[in-house]
Amino acid sequence: MSKPYAEMTKEELLAEKEALTVKYKHYQDRHLSLDMSRGKPSVEQLNLSMGMMDVLNSHVDLTCEDGTDCRNYGVLDGIPEAKALLADMMECNPDNIIIYGNSSLNIMYDTVARSMTHGVMGHTPWCKLKKVKFLCPVPGYDRHFAITEHFGIEMINVPMLSTGPDMDMVEKLVSTDDTIKGIWCVPKYSNPQGITYSDETVRRFARLKPAAEDFRIYWDNAYTIHHLNDMDQDHLIEILAECKIAGNADMVYKFCSTSKISFPGSGLAAIATSLNNLEEIKKQLAVQTIGHDKVNQLRHVRYFKDIHGMHEHMKKHAAILKPKFEMLNELFANEFDGLGVGSWVNPKGGYFMAFEAVPGCAKAIVARAKKCGVIMTTAGAPFPYGIDPNDTVIRIAPSYPEFEDLKIAAEIFVLCVKICTIEKVLEDKENEKPKKKN
Amino acid sequence: MSKPYAEMTKEELLAEKEALTVKYKHYQDRHLSLDMSRGKPSVEQLNLSMGMMDVLNSHVDLTCEDGTDCRNYGVLDGIPEAKALLADMMECNPDNIIIYGNSSLNIMYDTVARSMTHGVMGHTPWCKLKKVKFLCPVPGYDRHFAITEHFGIEMINVPMLSTGPDMDMVEKLVSTDDTIKGIWCVPKYSNPQGITYSDETVRRFARLKPAAEDFRIYWDNAYTIHHLNDMDQDHLIEILAECKIAGNADMVYKFCSTSKISFPGSGLAAIATSLNNLEEIKKQLAVQTIGHDKVNQLRHVRYFKDIHGMHEHMKKHAAILKPKFEMLNELFANEFDGLGVGSWVNPKGGYFMAFEAVPGCAKAIVARAKKCGVIMTTAGAPFPYGIDPNDTVIRIAPSYPEFEDLKIAAEIFVLCVKICTIEKVLEDKENEKPKKKN
Repeated sequence: MSKPYAEMTKEELLAEKEALTVKYKHYQDRHLSLDMSRGKPSVEQLNLSMGMMDVLNSHVDLTCEDGTDCRNYGVLDGIPEAKALLADMMECNPDNIIIYGNSSLNIMYDTVARSMTHGVMGHTPWCKLKKVKFLCPVPGYDRHFAITEHFGIEMINVPMLSTGPDMDMVEKLVSTDDTIKGIWCVPKYSNPQGITYSDETVRRFARLKPAAEDFRIYWDNAYTIHHLNDMDQDHLIEILAECKIAGNADMVYKFCSTSKISFPGSGLAAIATSLNNLEEIKKQLAVQTIGHDKVNQLRHVRYFKDIHGMHEHMKKHAAILKPKFEMLNELFANEFDGLGVGSWVNPKGGYFMAFEAVPGCAKAIVARAKKCGVIMTTAGAPFPYGIDPNDTVIRIAPSYPEFEDLKIAAEIFVLCVKICTIEKVLEDKENEKPKKKN
Repeated sequence: MSKPYAEMTKEELLAEKEALTVKYKHYQDRHLSLDMSRGKPSVEQLNLSMGMMDVLNSHVDLTCEDGTDCRNYGVLDGIPEAKALLADMMECNPDNIIIYGNSSLNIMYDTVARSMTHGVMGHTPWCKLKKVKFLCPVPGYDRHFAITEHFGIEMINVPMLSTGPDMDMVEKLVSTDDTIKGIWCVPKYSNPQGITYSDETVRRFARLKPAAEDFRIYWDNAYTIHHLNDMDQDHLIEILAECKIAGNADMVYKFCSTSKISFPGSGLAAIATSLNNLEEIKKQLAVQTIGHDKVNQLRHVRYFKDIHGMHEHMKKHAAILKPKFEMLNELFANEFDGLGVGSWVNPKGGYFMAFEAVPGCAKAIVARAKKCGVIMTTAGAPFPYGIDPNDTVIRIAPSYPEFEDLKIAAEIFVLCVKICTIEKVLEDKENEKPKKKN
């Protein structure tokens, strides 16, 4: 175990920095172009789903179980067999589901947009209110925050703990402030930390007593079956059932998609919620669209067949993703051991890791990585308004690069973390001096 | 040529009604179930596009022209080759296009929804205004009116003439009332009358001087290439170019889809508009979605190849549709000749005909047809709030039933028109009597 940078002398730090900088420059001379910024599946993963292109052809009957011709108009909430498949994936009753198009983000956007113009179950449309607020567990998913920002909704940071959002804070705020209308959650293998909400956290969510009757939990279970291991998986309590038990059946909207199961952009997305909420959504849907792509729904069902088929498929994704996460975790563990340069969670699923650097270092690390040809997610992105108050969180997205490229990118990242932390420690030491003089 | 019902004696009318009722009852005894209510392609038409299911398979490269892997995230406005194809279909520059999902109705909904919450190009969001109005040429498309009704927008009827909407009225209202923010148009082979706007009408549209700077024309060119004949086609002046010429480049949103070209529900939909409008839309789109289904875009391009391929495909649709329209037109011409029971336009394309019955008869005719097993579009549906002020318009959708079924349905419809008109004439005669007594 190495000595923490904070305990090194200025001379030791400068020597260490020089040695690291030599390595950094070697990488720089290679003029690399590597991307760890986006949670995109790799080409190898996309290839896993190519069989999906074969299940429908001109000799296949495109009629679904209930006799509907999937090629024609009709069906607003999804064909029965697709609802059954996605219900198993979402761990709920098919009757509680609406299948939309290809983007769960679009469902969330529509849900907020509808609340703005029409309100939630008879309550005042949010656009008629002076103030609407959302709670945002941080770090979180930047595109959630982009939706609420787009609609002028004020966002309040809630810290993420190892068990999920700080529920003391959530309970207090939600029960006392009726302008708080929602909270963004990625409850399983969270983006970006890979944290799964504890049983207690979910139970406390289900038992919230919101001051606003139109308060809703936006439960984006994006990584519900996106495990890295077959047996060593996180378990998340099913929120719809738990809310029902707690007498809060209408309090949650649950979202999911097959974007990282089949093809991103050509998958299925769905919402699951109470029948009361569904009734309201369907009223809008009947005005909004002629219905979603049933042929693509059929394609998914014919390919995966059932939830078992989907899980078997996810094992193949895991076989590609797991070594990447393992490599990162081992590299960080070896390289950062004892240096006091930051922390991270080694997730059991999902698409991301979050590296929590020494406060004040995240932007510098990301900038330094960029100068060496490694694109990271913009520092601050996992926070509302793009502002990380401590400048500490860096999202790492290991899925897209090939393994060998990822390894190089990760080595460069390690160098950047070390160099930037040394610079910060040196700066802090420098700043301390004048204070002593005073 | 027969004598008009209005000129017959009560005895003649009663005799005629009795003869018609015998025929009606014969049909009734057959317990038919026929549907002329919805503009759905027939199974025969759907079969035309089955080849689309074969163009992509697991051995086909799903990379598009610019190197984008269509299977992964990315691309907000459509892949280049799909934009090129739809631009040819929409008669505009690919740079002026955004391809959405499968439903042009959904684009229109989103366009109104965005105007409600965010306003149009910097103007006050409509939800902050006391009153917002739309002009609605009538008869028109019920689902347009459903969108504006859903958002609480007041709808003003504008009569359709044989040249399109009454432009004197449109010009006067739009130029004097700044609460009028839009007009719904189906400019070619209009729903339900099959009317194409004249050159003068389009030029007057492009030269409108709206009192509201955020006034927009909602130009739903749903039937742009949906001709019944290869040579004898209506021509519509391209509105984007015409608005640009008139110095009103930002005044129009143009919509289209391939719903009635490939598969309804699994097609492509797009908007074409000025670069200023596009810039605003793209800002929203970046927040709203991860992007639309690129694999399906690729599928369409690989199948149709180019606009010529699409036109050749449309000829096959026409070959199925044209005999249905011809049969209706001939039947009506023969059966209604001289009776004074109503009028209709024989369209050169599109999906509908509108029968304009004697005022006060439409609801009765539709109800009577239903009692004989023939489902027509609800009377009143082609009007805002479902109210046909004269109770005169009946939309006829001949596409879905097979030819022989359509023929029977049409014969029943003819009987219903005649019987109901006779009843109306008799009722009018009855009502005239007491007046004379007074």
